Amino acid sequence: MFGDKFIVMSIYEDSIKAHRESRGKLSVVSKLPITNKRELSIAYTPGVAGVSKEIHEHPESVRDLTIKGNTVAVVTDGSAVLGLGNIGPEAALPVMEGKAALFKEFADVDAFPVCLDTQDPDEIVKCVKTIAPAFGGINLEDISAPRCFDIERRLQDIGIPVMHDDQHGTAIVVRAALINAAKVVDKPFSSLKVAISGAGAAGNAIAKLLLCSGYKEKLCTSVADVIVVDSKGIIHRNREDLDKNKKELAEITNKKNITGSLADAMEGADVFIGVSVGNIVSKDMVKSMSSDPIVFAMANPVPEISPEDAKDAGARVVATGRSDFPNQINNVLAFPGIFRGALDAHARVINDEMKLMASLALSECVNEPREDYIIPEPFDKKVVPAVASAVKKAAEETGACD
Amino acid sequence: MFGDKFIVMSIYEDSIKAHRESRGKLSVVSKLPITNKRELSIAYTPGVAGVSKEIHEHPESVRDLTIKGNTVAVVTDGSAVLGLGNIGPEAALPVMEGKAALFKEFADVDAFPVCLDTQDPDEIVKCVKTIAPAFGGINLEDISAPRCFDIERRLQDIGIPVMHDDQHGTAIVVRAALINAAKVVDKPFSSLKVAISGAGAAGNAIAKLLLCSGYKEKLCTSVADVIVVDSKGIIHRNREDLDKNKKELAEITNKKNITGSLADAMEGADVFIGVSVGNIVSKDMVKSMSSDPIVFAMANPVPEISPEDAKDAGARVVATGRSDFPNQINNVLAFPGIFRGALDAHARVINDEMKLMASLALSECVNEPREDYIIPEPFDKKVVPAVASAVKKAAEETGACD
Repeated sequence: MFGDKFIVMSIYEDSIKAHRESRGKLSVVSKLPITNKRELSIAYTPGVAGVSKEIHEHPESVRDLTIKGNTVAVVTDGSAVLGLGNIGPEAALPVMEGKAALFKEFADVDAFPVCLDTQDPDEIVKCVKTIAPAFGGINLEDISAPRCFDIERRLQDIGIPVMHDDQHGTAIVVRAALINAAKVVDKPFSSLKVAISGAGAAGNAIAKLLLCSGYKEKLCTSVADVIVVDSKGIIHRNREDLDKNKKELAEITNKKNITGSLADAMEGADVFIGVSVGNIVSKDMVKSMSSDPIVFAMANPVPEISPEDAKDAGARVVATGRSDFPNQINNVLAFPGIFRGALDAHARVINDEMKLMASLALSECVNEPREDYIIPEPFDKKVVPAVASAVKKAAEETGACD
Repeated sequence: MFGDKFIVMSIYEDSIKAHRESRGKLSVVSKLPITNKRELSIAYTPGVAGVSKEIHEHPESVRDLTIKGNTVAVVTDGSAVLGLGNIGPEAALPVMEGKAALFKEFADVDAFPVCLDTQDPDEIVKCVKTIAPAFGGINLEDISAPRCFDIERRLQDIGIPVMHDDQHGTAIVVRAALINAAKVVDKPFSSLKVAISGAGAAGNAIAKLLLCSGYKEKLCTSVADVIVVDSKGIIHRNREDLDKNKKELAEITNKKNITGSLADAMEGADVFIGVSVGNIVSKDMVKSMSSDPIVFAMANPVPEISPEDAKDAGARVVATGRSDFPNQINNVLAFPGIFRGALDAHARVINDEMKLMASLALSECVNEPREDYIIPEPFDKKVVPAVASAVKKAAEETGACD
């Protein structure tokens, strides 16, 4: 453990040093040259007045003539930043810059951080609507549950796609990894019984996306059942302490309406998915699962059970959120391609069909799934084009585009 | 006139073509490389958590570790865009992108357009405060008078500099040009009687900045008097149709409280400054001015009086807003250096002293003022460093910095 901590401290220091030297990570540059009067008159006045007139007369041209067609806002209120919690908008900024940098590097999407000095859902919704004109999409980031659910829902009608990545980015990658894990253990995806630890942003979205189906039926079936466990135990329909979102989960999960603890949820399950806290799953709990258990222990930096222990206890396929083990569940496999596809399609929303097809396309980037290779590496060049094209197609086929 | 129109149409078409080909003007790029796992762990997780922790523990480090220290929001509500009027936030976007591009090209400031889907002053103030954490400064742009005055005033306490460029950028360049014009006609700046046509954003700020004094006294005296004329005639203390801002102007201008028309204001004046509409000043009105008249006819694209007519009528020094005549009053001479200096100083505001010193520094970029050279060319490399350094010094000397 001392070794781990030392490595983290060292990378913290290296990262602070790099950020200090470059004074942050993003630079906003002009794509048109402005070195003489003629160029100035094209990029700015008087020529730019012609561009403004054109957009005023033909509003749809804004996507072709401005940055709107290729630009995403990375919006946070700093309430749930990485594992650091509610550290506020300024301290969240380096993370949002990082996200924006990844958008550019992975998918040539121009993204810009919007760090909000409020944690009031009404004010967040209002502010995002107000700044929307310059953007082609909104990536909500690191906003704490349960506020994130309502905020995202209330922004679905603003005419550009709005997606909370902590929910759907994670869910899409998990579903892709699970499609391939099912192949490795030779079980039909539709037969899988899944226990999820954690009912926050990620747990909620994972449960819902695994239970999604109905579009391109054979490819996008739902799993057989999902049981979600929060800090109080299994979420079931008779619990009286559930908020709106957990009530919704109780309606669609846990078919037999069982009660009990995480251990009860895992007993006989084919799949464990952890998006909660470290060291809460024992070897015995893994042993109690169905044959050939699949274990995604994604708490960061300490997983719900260490990959070694999970394997020891009989898990056939193990994934984590960490880059130093095989099968890293990393959102960077999803959000760049999703927004690339949504922007290319001129999508108004990111709907379930687009998420399902993103998952499928991502899973298909792995030709032959193996125990230690159920999901592509972050730098696999096939990923973004495959996800983007699947998302664009699904957007067009479901009428989600302008 | 047909020739003029043809040139404008042609540059409109060229500009639309350039914008369509590049899909807008701005690109957001990463200053840190992200091409492998190690680089990813420095620019993003897990390393970036160290940067966030550092800022959470030492809030002042946000300027050094993120884009905040070098980034300005270019904020508009699209209510007064160029000469096009109230065309809304989407159609305003290419202009704001242009402004951001100029910030980068001229002063290495990273700037990003924020186009607001509201024209309600309360909502604008609220939204700008809410998005402020990621920015080191706010450039308000193309917001119509009189709303712009109140909006800017209410944003002076948010801890980062907020400046409405249509007001103060223009005023700073006008004051610089007038310092040199006074030298050309050999009259003390402090003796000048000035008639201003136009009481909007620019006219208001020009009147106030010309009447500013008191800091570094010998260098920054006020002119002798200013008379401002709006569409109803001379602004004086007995007019009952004045809004709050014009009442304020009536208190500080027009010492003798004269009444009448623009012609009355110009009679005996040393200086005419037009920020209003084309073709409203006759040769006779210029002839009625004091000896060696100075005429800044800045209405765009058609000046209040053509430079030829002004010269014919005896004007010694003529300036316009256009690039095809000598002495172009162009905001690009001011705003890049002003925000460069304010960011470098970690300024909390842009105060009068910073504006006065920016004017003076800009005027001093012209070694030997002549009738046709009272203000530097936009691409004069001396300008931004000179303005930035003067602004930084004034900020430090007046305690306007963190």
